[in-house]
Amino acid sequence: MTAVMKDTDAIKEKIYAKHGHDLYMRDMGLEILELREGYVKSRIPVKKEHLNSYGYVHGGVLYGFADVSAGLAASMCGYCVVTLEGSMHYLDPAEQTEYIYCEAEALREGKNMMFYHVRLTTDAGKAVDDGTFTFFNTHNPLPG
Amino acid sequence: MTAVMKDTDAIKEKIYAKHGHDLYMRDMGLEILELREGYVKSRIPVKKEHLNSYGYVHGGVLYGFADVSAGLAASMCGYCVVTLEGSMHYLDPAEQTEYIYCEAEALREGKNMMFYHVRLTTDAGKAVDDGTFTFFNTHNPLPG
Amino acid sequence: MTAVMKDTDAIKEKIYAKHGHDLYMRDMGLEILELREGYVKSRIPVKKEHLNSYGYVHGGVLYGFADVSAGLAASMCGYCVVTLEGSMHYLDPAEQTEYIYCEAEALREGKNMMFYHVRLTTDAGKAVDDGTFTFFNTHNPLPG
Amino acid sequence: MTAVMKDTDAIKEKIYAKHGHDLYMRDMGLEILELREGYVKSRIPVKKEHLNSYGYVHGGVLYGFADVSAGLAASMCGYCVVTLEGSMHYLDPAEQTEYIYCEAEALREGKNMMFYHVRLTTDAGKAVDDGTFTFFNTHNPLPG
Repeated sequence: MTAVMKDTDAIKEKIYAKHGHDLYMRDMGLEILELREGYVKSRIPVKKEHLNSYGYVHGGVLYGFADVSAGLAASMCGYCVVTLEGSMHYLDPAEQTEYIYCEAEALREGKNMMFYHVRLTTDAGKAVDDGTFTFFNTHNPLPG
Repeated sequence: MTAVMKDTDAIKEKIYAKHGHDLYMRDMGLEILELREGYVKSRIPVKKEHLNSYGYVHGGVLYGFADVSAGLAASMCGYCVVTLEGSMHYLDPAEQTEYIYCEAEALREGKNMMFYHVRLTTDAGKAVDDGTFTFFNTHNPLPG
Repeated sequence: MTAVMKDTDAIKEKIYAKHGHDLYMRDMGLEILELREGYVKSRIPVKKEHLNSYGYVHGGVLYGFADVSAGLAASMCGYCVVTLEGSMHYLDPAEQTEYIYCEAEALREGKNMMFYHVRLTTDAGKAVDDGTFTFFNTHNPLPG
Repeated sequence: MTAVMKDTDAIKEKIYAKHGHDLYMRDMGLEILELREGYVKSRIPVKKEHLNSYGYVHGGVLYGFADVSAGLAASMCGYCVVTLEGSMHYLDPAEQTEYIYCEAEALREGKNMMFYHVRLTTDAGKAVDDGTFTFFNTHNPLPG
């Protein structure tokens, strides 16, 4: 326990408020299922405007979903974070599923640099993507 | 020169037709400015629904744009390709620009594996992102 | 179970024999602690010629160790594989440890493409690096 | 021009002195051919202990060479830098060449984060690898 307790409930409230104003996340239909320090579980519905010509969810949608999700976990530090780099490996087509689920877990949350591993799965639990995202902590408090 | 000449005009026609049916690319407003073997130049307009809370274009939009653009260049092989992995480095915020431009250039186009370097810039020519995408050539001819 | 059983013992024998002739792995002092389909656990001793000016193990040594280890797991398919791409995230300095341990686990082993997640740790179990490696299965049987 | 001019000659001297003490770089036989702000050109001789079972230079050697080279370019800022992440794409086997050449060029050199693109080539100029490295500027002056 640190001398100054972090008010994680207040931080979560700020994150949810910010999330509500983000049109990209809203258009995506992103739902936060679980959010705590170093971890988030979220999901998006598969929409027909997100399918490529093979009938699979576009890689850009999956990446954007993963980036935003990892960013939510990183924001639990209470500060604004910016993505430095992200990478995604496409393991299996994202198809025959109503939702795509994302679990992002901290690999390391340092003072400046924060690293997250993400894993996207279908309704049936099939792993479709595996990625890593690096964020920089700006040390600017979350607005609100 | 190979014994059987590739009909690049016919391939381009198929790519443009496929592109026209892709809702994700259409929603993004993706325009192809130049397309030839191993190279594409494209652009998207910056839309307010693509901005994050800092007023910058979302990393997921930039990545999706880059992925699709590199895929267009790769499709000039005449076959359907699938993205194996992609990575993006965020160099500078994508802001104060009407369009984002993408140039994707082949690093190597092998029989099975195809590698592309992408570079995203603003109207003023500022580099905002740098990425790499790897595709697998399915050897299934492009439809059409 | 497939119609033709894979003789994993024969494959392991070939991998060990190949490993024994690899000067790079031998110089590194790589030891295989556990090897099975989709998984390897290995270790290298920390040598003073592998330390950088901060006294930490060089990133190139850690990457090479991870690449080779993931390649051993991939070789359990019975065929020669080649690395297509690899990435490493440096979480914490590799210091104050006698050995570096690597666990590589398959994310997906497809017919052509094989993806592995690697995690490097110290004697004390501290995670120092996290990476991903992609291999192409050449379908050329392992020699021996 | 900044108010306080950087003494690039003094910085280069410190980098060369540090380089001379690095056993990993010395064992590798790394030679700096050109070094200036945002850029380095270097080379290593191909040694038989660096070849894999196919007779190609090991991916770990190529990565380590690229990482160290990009780090030399980054060190021209005058401060100690640490690698945050690196990725390499293997385009073509590194074979039939006496040396491997590396050119590392800055993509962006920010206050905290520094990004470099690297390209490895053979004597004949064939591109064998393409990579990206991200460094964190510790703002601790180079020793010496």
